[in-house]
Amino acid sequence: MTGTLSDRLADYSAVARSLGVDAVALVPGPNFTRVVHHPFMSNERPFLLAACADGRAAAIVPNLELQSWELVGFDGPVFDWRDQTGYAEAFAGFMDYLNADSIAVEGQVMRVFIHHAMTAARADVQIVDAEREISALRMIKTPEDIEAMRIAIQISERALERTLETIQMGHTEKQIEQALVLNLFAEGASDHAFRPIVAAAENSARPHAEARDVPIKSGDALLFDFGARWGGFCADITRTFFVGHVADEDAELYDTVRRANNLGHEIARGGITAHEIDDAVTSVLEASPFAEYIRTKTGHGLGREVHEAPYIMRGNRMTLPAGTVFTNEPGLYVPGRLGVRIEDDVLITDAGSTSLTTFPTELRVLEC
Amino acid sequence: MTGTLSDRLADYSAVARSLGVDAVALVPGPNFTRVVHHPFMSNERPFLLAACADGRAAAIVPNLELQSWELVGFDGPVFDWRDQTGYAEAFAGFMDYLNADSIAVEGQVMRVFIHHAMTAARADVQIVDAEREISALRMIKTPEDIEAMRIAIQISERALERTLETIQMGHTEKQIEQALVLNLFAEGASDHAFRPIVAAAENSARPHAEARDVPIKSGDALLFDFGARWGGFCADITRTFFVGHVADEDAELYDTVRRANNLGHEIARGGITAHEIDDAVTSVLEASPFAEYIRTKTGHGLGREVHEAPYIMRGNRMTLPAGTVFTNEPGLYVPGRLGVRIEDDVLITDAGSTSLTTFPTELRVLEC
Repeated sequence: MTGTLSDRLADYSAVARSLGVDAVALVPGPNFTRVVHHPFMSNERPFLLAACADGRAAAIVPNLELQSWELVGFDGPVFDWRDQTGYAEAFAGFMDYLNADSIAVEGQVMRVFIHHAMTAARADVQIVDAEREISALRMIKTPEDIEAMRIAIQISERALERTLETIQMGHTEKQIEQALVLNLFAEGASDHAFRPIVAAAENSARPHAEARDVPIKSGDALLFDFGARWGGFCADITRTFFVGHVADEDAELYDTVRRANNLGHEIARGGITAHEIDDAVTSVLEASPFAEYIRTKTGHGLGREVHEAPYIMRGNRMTLPAGTVFTNEPGLYVPGRLGVRIEDDVLITDAGSTSLTTFPTELRVLEC
Repeated sequence: MTGTLSDRLADYSAVARSLGVDAVALVPGPNFTRVVHHPFMSNERPFLLAACADGRAAAIVPNLELQSWELVGFDGPVFDWRDQTGYAEAFAGFMDYLNADSIAVEGQVMRVFIHHAMTAARADVQIVDAEREISALRMIKTPEDIEAMRIAIQISERALERTLETIQMGHTEKQIEQALVLNLFAEGASDHAFRPIVAAAENSARPHAEARDVPIKSGDALLFDFGARWGGFCADITRTFFVGHVADEDAELYDTVRRANNLGHEIARGGITAHEIDDAVTSVLEASPFAEYIRTKTGHGLGREVHEAPYIMRGNRMTLPAGTVFTNEPGLYVPGRLGVRIEDDVLITDAGSTSLTTFPTELRVLEC
């Protein structure tokens, strides 16, 4: 963890100054959790924490959360409110204290009703979407962050291997998904990082497929995209296997994706841009006979959120410093037939990169 | 399920007309899922579905979701976009097609970046928060919805009983939480409805406590607040037990909460207002020696979301029709000592109410 609560709040005051706004306001979610070290829920009750450019800070806290809020050790003004009386007065006090003409917010996290509650309390306040600048503070992982991610990944990999060992011909996608989920929690996951994907045959061609009541059969691709959450951090792993046997053309497609994934590992190093990684990885797919089956960019940052900055795509000229963790997940998706995706979680170092994911990527045919 | 996709879209066109706006725009979440019958993810990729007051409909779909989108059977215009080129053009086409001066949105679901993308494409469009009116379509549950909730609740209750049977003196809150989670999935949950709460002693006084590495000891209250998700619907159950023995004062406090909970069941019937339920239930707590320990309203609606309308609180004069499901969850929270909450999921019928939760509420001392 990075310093004290005051230090972490000061990070966001600095963001406010660099953006030229009067304050940064956070709502429960990954940045909020990074600051307060307690996983408050995002629900229908407004809950905000603001850091001003001038170093002041204030919070809006639902009254029923005050007992938990005490654990945070925040010593600024707290505007609490009760369900029975509503939150308009708390917003009025909060906005009055901030006295901000402009507030930067996390556009990917804050919902419209909070936006409206702020402007209802101060009609002329300018709400700026600074998702990128605010979340950038999470991009370089601390050693503790990385350790939590390693544990989440190890849990996930053990759960996958246990699941593969029990698969039988004729099991349905849903049955296999349930086994995977049980194994994840049995191995120690505190939660899913996201709804797992278990998809076979033509269903695997849907990048975000939902498991069906359809049995697997010989020759099917069988794709797993899943991850444990542990210590507040996510794993995100994809492996694609084949059931019983693999057609030659499918093996060639698999090999193409694997070569693209390998190249992503080879070129990642501190100082590379997101563009350069996606360009190199996607070029492998484009140079193959399967270019028409590209659907996605190479990947995304990974940490407290399963999708976070940096987005690994062409056009994103952001430089990736050592300590960044991203998913290297090229894929090819043949509609009506199969999808193959291989996804590793990669830590960028000064000298190169380390794959936090260690599950083998060699083509594997499940004998079941 | 209610009719065809066209029927369900027509419901939102009618909402637009009744609000006097030109369109309703939905983003992935419970209303979106109700319409399309497929659980698309809410992530960094804009994904919208709009129903116009005049009956037209249009969608913005991330290109990589098009394969899944086909399953929806939507025949209106689809503006897809790719990660590599961004979504500005898709929004321009979508907003142009809608030709709407005013758009009603789900303020509790839509995030600020979508709001900004709409106004970037059409600066003078008025975005209205109509969370209540849009989500009201989910308030009356269909027989299929109720059956899914019954299953989610049965899974949850079986998981709780299995967990109680294995608790030993000295187990930590975290260990008990992990056992509960495993039991939930072993019993068939497709997911958590929310992060479960397992909290003992003074930690149970925090309505949204996080499990600690602290062992339970004789005399502790031990509170479980959790629920399975199944078939897209949530269970939300709280029971509070005592470890080894119960102090007389704690038993009296427990009995007070139980009498409040009982009254909630007794008075619920089609046509009652949310205010009347909360007023009656909270009055029981207020008339007790423990009035100062009230922290929360009586409850909230339950369905595809674990917190949804109607909010069961004083001042909410909304009439509850038969088919509404709400949580009846009075509680008392003594800081530094204990919290007691008893939460049932209650279906309102014309004649009265049915508790979908059947786990006993009699004071139970765990012999462990």
